[in-house]
Amino acid sequence: MSVNADTLGTVKAKLQELLGDRCSTADAVREQHGKDESWHEVCPPDIVCLAHSTEEVSKIVTLCADHKVPIIPFGAGTSLEGHVNAVEGGVCIDLGQMNEILTVNTEDLDCVVQPGVRRKQLNEYLRDTGLFFPIDPGADASIGGMASTRASGTNAVRYGTMRENILNLTVVLPDGKIIKTGGRAKKSAAGYDLTKLYIGSEGTLGIITEVTLRLYGIPEAIAAATVSFPDIESAVQSVILTIQSGIPVARIELLDEVQIDAINKYSGLDLPVQPSLFLEFHGSENGAQEQSEMVGEICKEFGAEDFKWTTQAEDRTKLWQARHDAAYAARALRNNASMWATDVCVPISRLADCIMQTKEDLDQSDLIAPIVGHVGDGNFHLAFVLDKSNPEEMEEAERLNARLIKRAQGMDGTCTGEHGVGLGKKKYLKDELGDAVEVMRVLKSALDPQNIMNPGKII
Amino acid sequence: MSVNADTLGTVKAKLQELLGDRCSTADAVREQHGKDESWHEVCPPDIVCLAHSTEEVSKIVTLCADHKVPIIPFGAGTSLEGHVNAVEGGVCIDLGQMNEILTVNTEDLDCVVQPGVRRKQLNEYLRDTGLFFPIDPGADASIGGMASTRASGTNAVRYGTMRENILNLTVVLPDGKIIKTGGRAKKSAAGYDLTKLYIGSEGTLGIITEVTLRLYGIPEAIAAATVSFPDIESAVQSVILTIQSGIPVARIELLDEVQIDAINKYSGLDLPVQPSLFLEFHGSENGAQEQSEMVGEICKEFGAEDFKWTTQAEDRTKLWQARHDAAYAARALRNNASMWATDVCVPISRLADCIMQTKEDLDQSDLIAPIVGHVGDGNFHLAFVLDKSNPEEMEEAERLNARLIKRAQGMDGTCTGEHGVGLGKKKYLKDELGDAVEVMRVLKSALDPQNIMNPGKII
Repeated sequence: MSVNADTLGTVKAKLQELLGDRCSTADAVREQHGKDESWHEVCPPDIVCLAHSTEEVSKIVTLCADHKVPIIPFGAGTSLEGHVNAVEGGVCIDLGQMNEILTVNTEDLDCVVQPGVRRKQLNEYLRDTGLFFPIDPGADASIGGMASTRASGTNAVRYGTMRENILNLTVVLPDGKIIKTGGRAKKSAAGYDLTKLYIGSEGTLGIITEVTLRLYGIPEAIAAATVSFPDIESAVQSVILTIQSGIPVARIELLDEVQIDAINKYSGLDLPVQPSLFLEFHGSENGAQEQSEMVGEICKEFGAEDFKWTTQAEDRTKLWQARHDAAYAARALRNNASMWATDVCVPISRLADCIMQTKEDLDQSDLIAPIVGHVGDGNFHLAFVLDKSNPEEMEEAERLNARLIKRAQGMDGTCTGEHGVGLGKKKYLKDELGDAVEVMRVLKSALDPQNIMNPGKII
Repeated sequence: MSVNADTLGTVKAKLQELLGDRCSTADAVREQHGKDESWHEVCPPDIVCLAHSTEEVSKIVTLCADHKVPIIPFGAGTSLEGHVNAVEGGVCIDLGQMNEILTVNTEDLDCVVQPGVRRKQLNEYLRDTGLFFPIDPGADASIGGMASTRASGTNAVRYGTMRENILNLTVVLPDGKIIKTGGRAKKSAAGYDLTKLYIGSEGTLGIITEVTLRLYGIPEAIAAATVSFPDIESAVQSVILTIQSGIPVARIELLDEVQIDAINKYSGLDLPVQPSLFLEFHGSENGAQEQSEMVGEICKEFGAEDFKWTTQAEDRTKLWQARHDAAYAARALRNNASMWATDVCVPISRLADCIMQTKEDLDQSDLIAPIVGHVGDGNFHLAFVLDKSNPEEMEEAERLNARLIKRAQGMDGTCTGEHGVGLGKKKYLKDELGDAVEVMRVLKSALDPQNIMNPGKII
């Protein structure tokens, strides 16, 4: 389906009147807005608008609603399941220039930001206040995008995901109305939880134009550690015991030997090419040391010999930069390769099984796919390194991905722990959630009866 | 509005066929199910059913849906805003006998329970596993009711509310269909967050018949403390600084001098009749001690002289029992009195102002109303001790309640932090949430088009 040319002409003229040169139909601009960092084919929108305010977004949406034209919100374009691809054409609203940090309430440990604010920008801005925003999906994503996809990442094991860290949203509804979903109280029992409904709704129910975030005090002490294991299972068992012991680790990341090899090459590290954990501990000086030592003991029980921890900021930064570059490092394993990143999440008691079975699948395949994961949450990723133009490789990735998802779902887990549904996971929802998908459909129809908000995503 | 007698006769006959003597129309049974612990007038349902399984609930709901008869779910009857009152008559489904703990997954720190399980029952059951469920609203509420009202309580400052501690719900929809909203993965980005939508929906969108809860390891050490202050403001300022310092207190409860006087009398304690904090610290032996000492220092800065902490289980139990009996203690301040409990929640920077202004209101009124609160979250309660049959006293409570709510809302807070909307807070929603209330209405109409699920509540 695509938008009728006459309608498009009318809408374009009105948008140009409203936005001037912040409304574009240039091919390069449309291309750039028609894809994220995923394997999905580019689908350019017909028109790209750069919005500067909630009121402007509301006007654009009202105009599109009047003409029944699809609307796709765009943040930083770092999503991983084709969330921004304009599968039915329409108007892309780029929120990247709405990047102001509006208020920081240091006393209340919260702040209000526009959706285009990037997470690194926010933490740089906050540094002098002694506060930080912990959610860290790796990419320098926009806060609006992270809210829309219910992002999480390396710190979620301690601080939760976007779901636990948003107090209030301003949302432009599919008819252009502007609502606020809450206030700044830390908790509320005042009616249906609209905040949580819009978090993770991937732009299909409205456009997020302001976000109130919870902040945290920068810990007195931060320690980072690396440790390598004789095999994946020992690494995962160490994670499970750490979590079950209630040690409040801030980060506990698994990298398999393929991924370690890749980051050694890419980031100039010299780690043993074995399954490894990267960890971080937050607390008082004593607390961080106590945690490090306890986890060191656990890892030793499972055969790790080289647990090393440090509170040196420089070493920590290098470590986490390498972790964040894992995907790029994986891609660099092969010339001119593309990447297909997928993620699942399972109850932690099933994590070792799930990863081992997945490794067996990979051993029997010609595709390379490093495994990395936020294993404290039972969440891990495969990154297929492939040639997108080779249909056999794409089919093989599809097959392995489907098996991974079925495996995770069979373990009472989910087809996506943090990447979201977008285009790529749509067909797996029904197996996981049964008739609950029908309830989602009812919600979507009720809140967006014209189906203009990011159509074709989720359901 | 009430149900037509013929319809009721038909439905009753069919329910009796299905449930035998677990379907009752006896006056005493109806009365008992027509009220909670609030000030709202009793509204008995026409029929009370005791359900024993999800399938049975589904059959009852289907039958009621076929005849367009209202359905009111009932847990322990401990809610505080008239949530179970059958304002349009209909069928009450009492879930109290669905009180089995179905599975405890110690490795995954979760469990699956039926909705009628009480929180004390659950923690007694869990004791030998070394795990516990932290959410503690005071009353020995049912887990289903706590989910439905988004309950929280004394431990929320550290462990979050019901919202943060439910992984999955089984819900019977208004047409009798049964859905599951998630799995057991600790996080998920698979579509709209239906789990969170049903949490706090107060039985207006469906009936919760199974709940998957997160559990936590019982801390190695638990320390409790009491401390009294020269005035309320010093107490609240100590709380604010404690939270801002990132000290992970497990409980931090304020009781004003009126409340302290009441519990001294009721629970045989001998605390100084001054504004006081009750605290609890969870952690390693060192951690709990470190936290206690840090908070002790903070309180001293604000003029408290008598900070006392203990790790004795007996002393702790006595303290928290007294805290939990605060409401009964308040009621006992006056012969044959009733209680009207209300709650608000504000950003913590506004907490001192909000409480001080509320105290001024009370000082100018003849009504007694102790203040207690989960102040670490910015949440506090007034409990008006009054004679329900005296219209002047009821009007005065109404007036003070309205002023309290307006004050909290004016501070970017909420009309209810944890009691929910029910009947009592309906009229205040619009002022707080504006057009978002319309979105709630759309959701309600879409998911319950016949308006049979606990009609008259929330919106």
